[in-house]
Amino acid sequence: MADPVGADVLARLASVIEARKAAAPASSYVASLFAKGDDAILKKIGEEATETVIAGKDGNPARITSEMADLWFHCLVLLAHHGLSPADVLRELARREGVSGHAEKAARGPG
Amino acid sequence: MADPVGADVLARLASVIEARKAAAPASSYVASLFAKGDDAILKKIGEEATETVIAGKDGNPARITSEMADLWFHCLVLLAHHGLSPADVLRELARREGVSGHAEKAARGPG
Amino acid sequence: MADPVGADVLARLASVIEARKAAAPASSYVASLFAKGDDAILKKIGEEATETVIAGKDGNPARITSEMADLWFHCLVLLAHHGLSPADVLRELARREGVSGHAEKAARGPG
Amino acid sequence: MADPVGADVLARLASVIEARKAAAPASSYVASLFAKGDDAILKKIGEEATETVIAGKDGNPARITSEMADLWFHCLVLLAHHGLSPADVLRELARREGVSGHAEKAARGPG
Repeated sequence: MADPVGADVLARLASVIEARKAAAPASSYVASLFAKGDDAILKKIGEEATETVIAGKDGNPARITSEMADLWFHCLVLLAHHGLSPADVLRELARREGVSGHAEKAARGPG
Repeated sequence: MADPVGADVLARLASVIEARKAAAPASSYVASLFAKGDDAILKKIGEEATETVIAGKDGNPARITSEMADLWFHCLVLLAHHGLSPADVLRELARREGVSGHAEKAARGPG
Repeated sequence: MADPVGADVLARLASVIEARKAAAPASSYVASLFAKGDDAILKKIGEEATETVIAGKDGNPARITSEMADLWFHCLVLLAHHGLSPADVLRELARREGVSGHAEKAARGPG
Repeated sequence: MADPVGADVLARLASVIEARKAAAPASSYVASLFAKGDDAILKKIGEEATETVIAGKDGNPARITSEMADLWFHCLVLLAHHGLSPADVLRELARREGVSGHAEKAARGPG
């Protein structure tokens, strides 16, 4: 059964982020990230992934949720920076999941 | 407007992952991750975040999408490991987004 | 042939870091890291590792050197936080790689 | 006073790594990393940094030492890949340390 939360939030957040790409850097955190460019966005992904790992070790559900929200948010910024949308990632996950019997191996990716 | 891709994929994938928690480690990649425990899952999040950063530097959209799918997949595994669901993270993102005017600052989190 | 740079810098830097453990957080970056505790130090290691990866992708030697210096510096802070020294890590590297002889003897030395 | 451990191990390890650059990938882990190229080396730095963070959370000194040895080892491989040596990083750290009064701010770098 579909969970309506996911659709709403990721797509809406992506729209908000897209809208902010045109804003003045001084007025918007997201616009300032876009202005600083790729490295600033990628640094945040590394930072928030590390904080997710730290939260995972602590095992505090609220903190895991909060740090993962930070991580996903900056993932959405990276996607927008490259003209991609969360739907692209979700489609890729759906494609892998759909490869019945081989879903997991596919999901594991090349790494 | 809702994007039906998001809801479907994240919730369905979470169900699949939950179902695999009970599987024998030898038969399932996800089950083997759960069996190895927290550190194995967290290691994967660090690895896939690094690969997302590398893909971001290359600027190849297909690779960014693929590495981010890997990253999100292992995020779902971490959530399941702690009794959480993607809806928890999406609700947190929605809550931040909903704090109109302060959405961005909140999204940036404490870090 | 031994490179006298290594010995000087790591050991001296470790001494400086140890000395700063007792300083007031407001007066010293290192003291403030110790005061914030483990997570603050570990966050920096994740951050600086990400910046090293980004620099590696750019292939700029000066930036690789600079980011790796940041990474190693925060590694020394983590070691000090846990009562360890760079010599502990170097001894482990010497043991693994069979790069012994003088190094091992020195490690067992008077101090 | 100089600590002979540091000088020996890092410089000698760098020589060993340099020598392995020419080896056949099948016969040497380091040669296989060089053959796979930049991304394989950078992935390892991300992985080992994450494992260092995990070990730091556990607070087990032997594991911190071991994971940091892995991290530093792959840092040496990255340096060799770009024609750099550990002495370059140590010189940068020495330069920062030498900037008396401003040593810490410099060591913090731009990040």
